[in-house]
Amino acid sequence: MPAGPLPPGAMIGILGGGQLGRMLAMAAARLGLRCHIYSDHPGPAFDVAAATTLGAFDDLDKIRAFARAVDVITYEFENVPVKAAEAAAAIRPVRPGAQALAVAQDRLAEKTFLTGLGIPVAPFAAVDGVADLSRALALFNAPAILKTRRLGYDGKGQTRVNPGDDLAAAFAAIGHAPAVLEKMLCFEMEVSVLVVRPAAGRADTARFYDIPRNEHREGILHKSHVPSGLPEPVVARAREIALQAADALAYTGVLAVEMFYGGEGAQTPIVVNEIAPRVHNSGHWTLDACAVSQFENHIRAVAGWPLGPTDRHSDAVMTNLIGTDYNAWPQLAAGCGASPPGSICLHLYGKHEARAGRKMGHVTVLKGRVLST
Amino acid sequence: MPAGPLPPGAMIGILGGGQLGRMLAMAAARLGLRCHIYSDHPGPAFDVAAATTLGAFDDLDKIRAFARAVDVITYEFENVPVKAAEAAAAIRPVRPGAQALAVAQDRLAEKTFLTGLGIPVAPFAAVDGVADLSRALALFNAPAILKTRRLGYDGKGQTRVNPGDDLAAAFAAIGHAPAVLEKMLCFEMEVSVLVVRPAAGRADTARFYDIPRNEHREGILHKSHVPSGLPEPVVARAREIALQAADALAYTGVLAVEMFYGGEGAQTPIVVNEIAPRVHNSGHWTLDACAVSQFENHIRAVAGWPLGPTDRHSDAVMTNLIGTDYNAWPQLAAGCGASPPGSICLHLYGKHEARAGRKMGHVTVLKGRVLST
Repeated sequence: MPAGPLPPGAMIGILGGGQLGRMLAMAAARLGLRCHIYSDHPGPAFDVAAATTLGAFDDLDKIRAFARAVDVITYEFENVPVKAAEAAAAIRPVRPGAQALAVAQDRLAEKTFLTGLGIPVAPFAAVDGVADLSRALALFNAPAILKTRRLGYDGKGQTRVNPGDDLAAAFAAIGHAPAVLEKMLCFEMEVSVLVVRPAAGRADTARFYDIPRNEHREGILHKSHVPSGLPEPVVARAREIALQAADALAYTGVLAVEMFYGGEGAQTPIVVNEIAPRVHNSGHWTLDACAVSQFENHIRAVAGWPLGPTDRHSDAVMTNLIGTDYNAWPQLAAGCGASPPGSICLHLYGKHEARAGRKMGHVTVLKGRVLST
Repeated sequence: MPAGPLPPGAMIGILGGGQLGRMLAMAAARLGLRCHIYSDHPGPAFDVAAATTLGAFDDLDKIRAFARAVDVITYEFENVPVKAAEAAAAIRPVRPGAQALAVAQDRLAEKTFLTGLGIPVAPFAAVDGVADLSRALALFNAPAILKTRRLGYDGKGQTRVNPGDDLAAAFAAIGHAPAVLEKMLCFEMEVSVLVVRPAAGRADTARFYDIPRNEHREGILHKSHVPSGLPEPVVARAREIALQAADALAYTGVLAVEMFYGGEGAQTPIVVNEIAPRVHNSGHWTLDACAVSQFENHIRAVAGWPLGPTDRHSDAVMTNLIGTDYNAWPQLAAGCGASPPGSICLHLYGKHEARAGRKMGHVTVLKGRVLST
C-alpha cells in the first residue's frame, strides 16, 4: 500500500468499461489522475480514458499486464471474476478488494455475510432444485422471488413465485441455476445508503451521502429522490448498517447498500435487499447536487486521498433514460419534460444503440434555490 | 450547417489541447459527444479525448485531415492561426468562426472593432515604434500600458510606461513588436461577462452566467467571485455590451468579455478591457455552482444544441493554482486552506511540471446552504 495519496498523474486501473467506469474516469480526470480501462468490449469508458486494454476477464496474463501498467485498481461492476481481482491484487492494490466481490457476486454468500453481522434481510433459503424451492415456499407460505445466486442484475435472473405455482417452470425460468428464494416483503420505500470509506491507514472516517428514495420500473432503477423523507432515526440506523458492512469487508471506496423501509414488522423498519461494491446508479444525482460526487469520492478513496465533502447543495431527482427513453434527448436538452420542474442536468453515456432495458443516460433535476447576481 | 443538433456519438474537433480543451472534452462526454483534440504538443486534453492529432497549427494539410475526421470544430485558445481556422472551415463548420479569432488576436483590431460598435474601451493608440509611443504617451499624459498587438496573455508581452520613462527600453521590453498603448484606468473592480450564444438558425436566445468579480496577481487571474457586488443596472449594461459584441461577430458559443467597473468617469461606468472568443478562466466556477457549466454550454452551442440553464445554485469563489500553489494539493484535497470556508471542489489539470506562472488547477469553494436529509 502506498505511504500517501497517489499523486496527480498516477494511473488508476478500472476493471469494466461501462457508464460507471466512464463517470469514474471523468471524476479521476478532474483530480489530475489518469485512467486505464480494462474491458472485454469497447465500452462508454473508452472514450474518456488515457489508456485502454481490450481483454477477456479470465485472461489472467492480460489482467496481470494491465495491473503492472497502473498504480492501483478498482472495478465498476461486481461480476469481475474473483480470480481476476486476485491475480491483479498480487501485483497492485485492488480496492475494494476481492472479498467484497466474492460476497456481492453470490446472493447466498451475501445474505449469509449480512445475517452473520446481525443485519436484517428478508427471509431466504438456498435453492438448488425444485425440491428446495417447494420446501422454502411452503415455509414462507407467501409470494416470493426466486433469484439466481450469480450474475443477476436489473431484474435479470429472477422470477416471482406464488404458492401453488408451477415450480418446475419457475426453476426453468432462471435456467436451473443455483438460486435463492426470498420472501417478498411489503415495504413503504426502497432506499439506498451510499457510504464511502477511505483507504486503510488513513485517519479520516467514512462519510455518507444523503439517502435517496428509489423507484424501480420493471426491475430497473427508474428514479432516485433526495431528500427521501426517511425518518431521522431510521437514517441513522440505515447508515450504521451500511458502515457495519463496509467495516466488515475492510472496504475502500463507495459501497451501496439497498434497503427496504417500513411495511410489515415495525420492529425491523429497515431490511437490507442487496449490496453493490461499487458506485451506484442511485448515487448519480451526486454529480450535480454535491460538491464532490460519489465517483470522485470513490476515486479519492481508491487513490488513498482524503475524502471530499458529501454535503448536498440542492434537492434532486435523478431519472434514468432506459431504452427508448433516450429518444427524448433533444427535448431534455432543451429543458422540456423535466419532472419535477427544475434545472435539468443531462448525462448521456455515448452508447450507440438504445436497446430495451439498456441504460443510455440519466437526467438529474436540481430543485431548490436559484441565485443570481 | 447541420439541420439540427449533432446527435450523441458525433465528434467535436477541438483546436488546442490545454486545460480548457480538457474541460470542454469532459463536458462533451457528459452529453455523449466525443472529442478529437488537435494540438502541437500532447497536452492535458489528450488524456480525456476519444481521438487526438499531434500537428503544427500551420500544417494546413493536417488541419484539413483533422477537419474531415470530425463533425464540427471549435477552439480553446485565441491564437489559433486564422489560416488554420479558415482551412478547417472550408470543410466543416468552425464555431465560433475565424472572424472572432481575427479580432481577438490583434489588440488593435479588437479595440477598433469595439469602438466601431460604440463600446467604451480605455484610450488607446497604435504603436509601431518609439516615435508613436512618445506621441501617444504625451497625449495621455498619464501612466499607460504598452501591449503587443499579438500573442500576449496572462500579462506576457506587456509593460507599464510612465511619462518620463526610457521609451526605447520600454519598446525593447516587448521585443519591438507592433503594439498598442493603453491609458491605465483607475477602476473599482474587474469583472467579466460570460455570454453564450446559440448556433445560427436556432430559436433560443443568448444566455448569461452571473458576472464574476476578478482579482489578478502578477497579470494572471487569481480569483473570481460570484456574486460580484456589481450594481444591477451595471450588470444589465455589461451584458448588453457583451451581447452586442457577440451579435456583431455572429458568434457561436461562450464569449468572455473582460471589463473594468467604476473609478474615473462615472459617465462610462463600464469599460471593456478585452474579449476572449472561448470559454474563460473566470467561468471555471460554473463547473461546480451551476447545473450546466460554461464548458457544456459552449459544446451545446457548437453542436447546435439548445443551451442549458445558466442559473447559479451556490455562491462561489474560484482560486487558480498557479505554479507552486499546486504543491498544496494534498491540503486542498483534505478540505484545508479553503478561503473562504466552504466545500472545496478541486480541479487539477494533469500537467506534469508546476512551472512558475503555469495554471496547474483551480479550486472552487461553494458557499451558501448545505442541505441534508
